[in-house]
Amino acid sequence: MWAKTIEWLGDKARLIDQRKLPTREIYVDIKTTEEMFDAIKNMLIRGAPAIGVAAGYGIALAALKNSDKDYIRNKIDLIESSRPTANNLFYVTNRMRELLKKDDVDVSMLILEAISIHKEDRELTEKLGKYGRELIPQKAQCMTICNAGALATGGIGTALAVFYKAKEQGKEISVFVPETRPFLQGARLTVWELKKNGIEPILIADSAISHILKTERVDAIFTGADRIAANGDTANKIGTYGLSLAAREHDVPFFVVAPSTTFDLSLESGEEIPIEERSPFEIIEFRGISIAPKDIRVRNPSFDITPNHLITGIITEKGIIYPPFEDGVKILK
Amino acid sequence: MWAKTIEWLGDKARLIDQRKLPTREIYVDIKTTEEMFDAIKNMLIRGAPAIGVAAGYGIALAALKNSDKDYIRNKIDLIESSRPTANNLFYVTNRMRELLKKDDVDVSMLILEAISIHKEDRELTEKLGKYGRELIPQKAQCMTICNAGALATGGIGTALAVFYKAKEQGKEISVFVPETRPFLQGARLTVWELKKNGIEPILIADSAISHILKTERVDAIFTGADRIAANGDTANKIGTYGLSLAAREHDVPFFVVAPSTTFDLSLESGEEIPIEERSPFEIIEFRGISIAPKDIRVRNPSFDITPNHLITGIITEKGIIYPPFEDGVKILK
Repeated sequence: MWAKTIEWLGDKARLIDQRKLPTREIYVDIKTTEEMFDAIKNMLIRGAPAIGVAAGYGIALAALKNSDKDYIRNKIDLIESSRPTANNLFYVTNRMRELLKKDDVDVSMLILEAISIHKEDRELTEKLGKYGRELIPQKAQCMTICNAGALATGGIGTALAVFYKAKEQGKEISVFVPETRPFLQGARLTVWELKKNGIEPILIADSAISHILKTERVDAIFTGADRIAANGDTANKIGTYGLSLAAREHDVPFFVVAPSTTFDLSLESGEEIPIEERSPFEIIEFRGISIAPKDIRVRNPSFDITPNHLITGIITEKGIIYPPFEDGVKILK
Repeated sequence: MWAKTIEWLGDKARLIDQRKLPTREIYVDIKTTEEMFDAIKNMLIRGAPAIGVAAGYGIALAALKNSDKDYIRNKIDLIESSRPTANNLFYVTNRMRELLKKDDVDVSMLILEAISIHKEDRELTEKLGKYGRELIPQKAQCMTICNAGALATGGIGTALAVFYKAKEQGKEISVFVPETRPFLQGARLTVWELKKNGIEPILIADSAISHILKTERVDAIFTGADRIAANGDTANKIGTYGLSLAAREHDVPFFVVAPSTTFDLSLESGEEIPIEERSPFEIIEFRGISIAPKDIRVRNPSFDITPNHLITGIITEKGIIYPPFEDGVKILK
């Protein structure tokens, strides 16, 4: 039933190539840290928690190759430079750096740590789903954005875990899925994943979000997150901020679903979160076909910040945090 | 310099095929009313004022073929059924029906009427641009959506006419252009047209609109319109409503630019404007390439309604109308 987003095979990691979905299910074996760096940077694997899990295995691969601590530290730096926004990446690289500081650390400990990180991520997503599902009525029509599902985590997802766990309770759910340009994670990944798991997706253009929230009943919105500041400001896929504005306008509850590893409590607010700007060719071309003239200016921010005052609640593995988030985040410590 | 959106050649109309732009500039000769019906329905020509001009020529082609009034009336009905939202279409079909009611009407009068409609549209767009440009500072950064340019009218555009006329005054203008899924009028048409006419486009994904308005200086937003009700509620390309919500949030003036032919004063509010729902395949496929699984639910509304309270002003050929629009529209009568 589930997508095998990432697997550890003892001496390599196996990823499903998310750029090829849903047309083709192709698995790629990653044998070096450099290959993992490329896989994260080029979005063969994406989604903040999944990036964290992939980073762990990328570091394990370095340890397998060379037990020298400086060598491994360099490879941690490399992995860390793959993408700037998702906190889960830094959570994992920091954890690995801490482990390396111990005197008696050996290669197998780093590998076991990567496996633990993956196992913990799986367990966290189950808990997110269980907390979140209580917010959904028996017959629900919801909305999400991008892909915050099994494909974005080491487990059953963050936002989509809520739907999967609600379905286990016998709830009937359909979900509006914005296609999520430019990478089309909604159209390609979320639609595929929801269908595969028995939940009905309704695909829309990103630009239809406000009109749908105005004209259709939507019980609640659930999104993932790439980084959450101490005040609750949330970085997530570009378009999430606009979605939150429309949600407020139409009184639709807006929930962020994220494990504690997504929080960066060292940041006071979302203004401090770095926003990745990706290649203009993601917008100018579609699978090699020109959409627009090549020699033009493009802005392609990959994330945006949803301010805390537009967020109804943040669902974590330790419970649901409601405003004021500055106080609520204390349960994470 | 300008795109030859639509031309009358005495016994046929010539259109640039907007589905092929910007990769290829292909002109198509339209010789029958049925061909014009298809061209409008399949968006070979689009944009509310251009649809009106095309409708006029489509009816002229019927008159050329058969002078029987009932025959022509049937063809007017056909043209009128091509697309439901743009008011300019109904403005033209109603005008032709009125003309047909006269006792002494002959074929040449219908053809001359179609040519007049085109000429008037050209003149209207010049006036829209002249009124609108006074709202733009010397060095301006603006935003638009979809294509409300020369390609959308019989003249130099509605929203884009403002930029063209401001440039004639020596103003320096760059324009954020959302790509405008699913048909990509922004990426394909507006970017091409602005560049061709010396104005710098900055292409963004539709989902980046709110983030850009939050993080960049944008002096004003100018959009076209497909139909405007008596209270100022405006139907325009899907995504315009979300854009207007973000504009209010960030105090960016939001102007609608439209000739009086776009107003439907018989409608009290936007709730009465029919919203076209187009084929799911516009979302599921991209130029024949599957993006999402085929057997899924899709919602593909082509327009949305921006409520009057989110509109700063409506620029018409008779002047700029400010709230309360119910009073302001009196200048159109």
